[in-house]
Amino acid sequence: MGRWEPDSRGRLQEAALALFSERGFDQTTAAEIAARAGVTERTFFRHFADKREVLFGGSQLLQERIVSGVAEAPAAVTAIEAVACGLDAAAAMLGEARRDLTAQRQAVIASNPELRERELAKLAAYAALVAATLRHRGVSELQSTLAAEAGMSVLRTALERWANGNDDRSLPVVMKDYMGELRAVAAGS
Amino acid sequence: MGRWEPDSRGRLQEAALALFSERGFDQTTAAEIAARAGVTERTFFRHFADKREVLFGGSQLLQERIVSGVAEAPAAVTAIEAVACGLDAAAAMLGEARRDLTAQRQAVIASNPELRERELAKLAAYAALVAATLRHRGVSELQSTLAAEAGMSVLRTALERWANGNDDRSLPVVMKDYMGELRAVAAGS
Repeated sequence: MGRWEPDSRGRLQEAALALFSERGFDQTTAAEIAARAGVTERTFFRHFADKREVLFGGSQLLQERIVSGVAEAPAAVTAIEAVACGLDAAAAMLGEARRDLTAQRQAVIASNPELRERELAKLAAYAALVAATLRHRGVSELQSTLAAEAGMSVLRTALERWANGNDDRSLPVVMKDYMGELRAVAAGS
Repeated sequence: MGRWEPDSRGRLQEAALALFSERGFDQTTAAEIAARAGVTERTFFRHFADKREVLFGGSQLLQERIVSGVAEAPAAVTAIEAVACGLDAAAAMLGEARRDLTAQRQAVIASNPELRERELAKLAAYAALVAATLRHRGVSELQSTLAAEAGMSVLRTALERWANGNDDRSLPVVMKDYMGELRAVAAGS
């Protein structure tokens, strides 16, 4: 990143989300994003491989945080508690972002079938990795899958409601509370 | 359906799955499926709008069965028990199919990213409808979403393991057992 472009990545993200919201994802080009952010197209491509990357660029890091959280949970905890540790790690990272930008990102994805499918595939990939990490901890294959998928459902729901202002508390608090709700609903209470 | 083509739909499904498995979904044409089944291409298109329909044709009916199962659960049962009623209805329908064909269908879908995304989108749509049905029963929005998504995870897992012969019992029995496993894992036992 050039020293004459303070936070051009952040400005590009904001510009991209604004344009995606106004015109639609398919109707927006990298050149237009760069222009809106007041940088060159070359600068755009120094930060992002393509415009899709603006929406999904953090996925790899988030995945690593979740998996580490699960893997490093104390040995004595149950499968669902290990998943909760992964969600804590995710909430710590995702909760740093601006709520309004997170909400804008979700709205853009929700309005485009291709992006929606990519988002679902991403969550399914997280679930598969979390399940593999649980198996490695000695959890049965079946319980690993069920705990991991339920956990990703909590993650998605908590992030969505936090971003949309349906829940005023911080993301880590919301995430913990929703995990409790999952456990309550599964218990049948 | 012509009276000179007994079970041509079934033969077309078998032929399609065999060809998709051998050559890949993208490399198979409707004409080839018809030829393998010993019927005309016109007969193929009388049964299926396209080759994708061979894999996803039952989705609408399955969705209706699941939603009815949830909607018609006794008023007194909890959210997760209502979801279990929906899964019972799904298992009754899906358990009628041949295991080997179900397994073949899953393998074809697993090996093709586009089909995999469609399958995920289908499950997400089921979950959204089940959640709406639960809300209609007076369950909170949050618990509706979490119970519905956990239920679809049980459905997918049970169907997969039943089809692949990892579980010899009938699908309704497997489904019920896996719902119990979900409840156990969420309870943290």
